[in-house]
Amino acid sequence: MSLVTCDLSISLDGFAAGTDQRLDAPFGDGVGDDGHDLHRWMFDTPEEHAAELGAITEAGAFIMGRNMFSPGRGAWDLDWTGWWGPNPPYHAPVFVLTHHERAPVEMEGGTTFHFVTDGPEAALARARAAAGEKNVAIAGGAATVNQYLAAGAIDELRLHVAPVIVGRGERLFAGLGHTPLRLISARCTPMVNHLTYGRA
Amino acid sequence: MSLVTCDLSISLDGFAAGTDQRLDAPFGDGVGDDGHDLHRWMFDTPEEHAAELGAITEAGAFIMGRNMFSPGRGAWDLDWTGWWGPNPPYHAPVFVLTHHERAPVEMEGGTTFHFVTDGPEAALARARAAAGEKNVAIAGGAATVNQYLAAGAIDELRLHVAPVIVGRGERLFAGLGHTPLRLISARCTPMVNHLTYGRA
Repeated sequence: MSLVTCDLSISLDGFAAGTDQRLDAPFGDGVGDDGHDLHRWMFDTPEEHAAELGAITEAGAFIMGRNMFSPGRGAWDLDWTGWWGPNPPYHAPVFVLTHHERAPVEMEGGTTFHFVTDGPEAALARARAAAGEKNVAIAGGAATVNQYLAAGAIDELRLHVAPVIVGRGERLFAGLGHTPLRLISARCTPMVNHLTYGRA
Repeated sequence: MSLVTCDLSISLDGFAAGTDQRLDAPFGDGVGDDGHDLHRWMFDTPEEHAAELGAITEAGAFIMGRNMFSPGRGAWDLDWTGWWGPNPPYHAPVFVLTHHERAPVEMEGGTTFHFVTDGPEAALARARAAAGEKNVAIAGGAATVNQYLAAGAIDELRLHVAPVIVGRGERLFAGLGHTPLRLISARCTPMVNHLTYGRA
């Protein structure tokens, strides 16, 4: 059965990004200086986390927030095609939640960015249709994940918890009320704890 | 070598207690309705977590905040001797951080509550002296733990992370800045993830 999944790297104190998201951050990944620690496991020791890394991009369609697509940009920029270069790692349709209409942007390798202006529910319906038998992945950022969590729409929340306190930034679970979850799987390593949760 | 440890049950979103701490909460444990989910592993399946439970009270001295000693009480109450009954589980000196002078309260089983009015550093010095070769445990609540974390005083932070989003209450790590940590050990179960961190 097709699932709605979500992979998110967070700090031990629950932040998915630092406060200083911008495109000229040291690693150019738009997650902010503080946030880089959260993604160290991907960049420094990918071979140790091959299964988890592979699972992140195996979905048949993706949904992301506008701020993940173009972090730190005040205005909508038609020249901007994401920070992943000409061949993004998705290789599938990516539905970007935004208030600004824009024609789809076809990238190399099978990734096409579609801009959805009628809300997260509509984006999920379009992503499900595009994914077919495959999963739909909520790619981030935290605000977008929180919207889908609040709606009870996420079947597998795959957290990658880095051993760092960040102290500020975009918080996963912000605004959510009491929600019991169920641990599906756990694999803990010095660099990161991979914890997958589902609905209780 | 004697260590400063801290055991704290938290929700997946980092809360150590709900907002409604009071003595007439359903389980009388002073952690609030929301907070009860955090301690379910202790009460429902203690045999599965015997090692972690045993480790919580093996220290030679304990430190706790005034709000943990007498949650939800507006005024200092000389009749109050904690919510653990006549024989508290500490069996050792417990140093309670407070602004109110009070004579020590000797309980059954070796627990004596000492009231410390000259701050967390003084409390730690007294607890170390009392513990001798044994560890000193920061018993909680979150505000007290955060003070000692900010001071870099905790050698082993033993988190017991329940699979629940609580959404509000007293937050572990509140007010802390960027702090890298080091995973010392991890044991994950459906009821709770036991994660021990030290300084990086």
